[in-house]
Amino acid sequence: MQAPTLSILGVGLLGGSIGLALRSVSSNYKIRGYGHRKTTLDAAIEVGAIDEGYDDLRASVRGSDWVILCTPVGLFGEILTKISDVLAPGTIVTDVGSTKRSVVEQAAKALPKGVHFVGSHPMAGSEKRGIEFARADLFRGALCITTPTPATDAAALEKVEAFWKSIGMSIKRTSPADHDRWISDVSHLPHAVAAALVDMQEDPALALAGKGFLDTTRIAGGDAGLWRDIFIDNRDNLRVGIQRLQASLDRLTHMLDNNKSEEVRQWLDQAAARRQQLLQQKLKEINPD
Amino acid sequence: MQAPTLSILGVGLLGGSIGLALRSVSSNYKIRGYGHRKTTLDAAIEVGAIDEGYDDLRASVRGSDWVILCTPVGLFGEILTKISDVLAPGTIVTDVGSTKRSVVEQAAKALPKGVHFVGSHPMAGSEKRGIEFARADLFRGALCITTPTPATDAAALEKVEAFWKSIGMSIKRTSPADHDRWISDVSHLPHAVAAALVDMQEDPALALAGKGFLDTTRIAGGDAGLWRDIFIDNRDNLRVGIQRLQASLDRLTHMLDNNKSEEVRQWLDQAAARRQQLLQQKLKEINPD
Repeated sequence: MQAPTLSILGVGLLGGSIGLALRSVSSNYKIRGYGHRKTTLDAAIEVGAIDEGYDDLRASVRGSDWVILCTPVGLFGEILTKISDVLAPGTIVTDVGSTKRSVVEQAAKALPKGVHFVGSHPMAGSEKRGIEFARADLFRGALCITTPTPATDAAALEKVEAFWKSIGMSIKRTSPADHDRWISDVSHLPHAVAAALVDMQEDPALALAGKGFLDTTRIAGGDAGLWRDIFIDNRDNLRVGIQRLQASLDRLTHMLDNNKSEEVRQWLDQAAARRQQLLQQKLKEINPD
Repeated sequence: MQAPTLSILGVGLLGGSIGLALRSVSSNYKIRGYGHRKTTLDAAIEVGAIDEGYDDLRASVRGSDWVILCTPVGLFGEILTKISDVLAPGTIVTDVGSTKRSVVEQAAKALPKGVHFVGSHPMAGSEKRGIEFARADLFRGALCITTPTPATDAAALEKVEAFWKSIGMSIKRTSPADHDRWISDVSHLPHAVAAALVDMQEDPALALAGKGFLDTTRIAGGDAGLWRDIFIDNRDNLRVGIQRLQASLDRLTHMLDNNKSEEVRQWLDQAAARRQQLLQQKLKEINPD
């Protein structure tokens, strides 16, 4: 049997790490990388993340068995449209986007029958970006959410999930809509809040900021272009999340205005306990024994 | 010359760490600790944070040269009133509270002439609490804010600042009002926001939370009683901070509603750049060369 060919579209932190991770568990793939900067492609070849670099999108997927979209989510629609008539029947297409409704819809519209799209969100990464931060173990121990729909090919779904498992991820399935709503709350909203917490500061206050402030705003250090795409794409959920956060802060303000000391303590205590429970659960997922 | 006597009122994380830090730089102090739990006092003696434990507040400060308030800020007023007539002229009193207007006012009212109060806020600590987490190096490299007023004794101010410097801190002076406003924005507000971010989550979303969410909400793990006192004491500033944060999020919502993609990118970019600048500055403060 011939080695399967996998095309990584966008060889930044995530795309590059997929190549490195795959290489570390199997030599049975021919890995192509697509990007518009030659220096990035050369660097990706240099570190061993890809075998071949392409600056021609359609050429990069021609004859491939697997295609993984690793660009910012704002480019997915255009890419899917451009590559659709080059893909052979049986090709599996997936992605690493942080929003899922739009790409699932775009893929359903753009891709021909017999080309199987499965939405994926491997929840790994950091506020760093670029091939220079790519690591073979970026995905190890982390969660990948897959977002099948009734139209998703069952065999392709199994294959995509096996792919993520092979590089160390655990899998959860949700609908694209549930994914976007929940991930908005636990990822996109915290990012927006972190940015707002920096945005509203006066300079003399910022000069007094300590470790707590830096931790709380760490994710605000992420790439603005990537996150712009995510915010715009998931704006309906993000708007509702912002409203719910504001309502929670309004409740706190109301307790403060009325000097409800014991209620403030309970509110803080519940949040601390809930976070502690989450932390224990996460630690257990990493170290099951 | 006789060894000066220092009374630490409240031997938890901060009080215990002061004792340990002082011990590590000087053997020239007799350190007393006050607390209402015998086990805590015994533990503080055991680890070497204090020489003697007292469960009688007034006895613990009688004849002391230095008194440091290390209880939750909500107890400061009561403690100052109770100890005021036991303190000898020349005694220096300071504190470690995260709010400063109230304690400065309470001290001015409660303490007799000749007893010198200087407000201090050593910005160290963590979401952990208790003598078991006390460390000699907790304050090293961190900032201590002192909050003198026109009524503050200049010599006492110098001594208090020299004290914090001796255990590795750098000093910034502000008025109590500026302190409370700025620290509300960079410390109390982020704490409130972190708690609100946990509070507003639905369980299925929380199950998908990753490292970013845990980082952003880390400070929400702090002790509810301590933070209740801080929030109630600084509620006027916190309320204004919440409003300004909500206004910043309203601006984001407005950009999203109007699909202002480029404005969203700029807003995120500015926040990321501003945080990066702060991070560089903090790293420079830790490693000046």
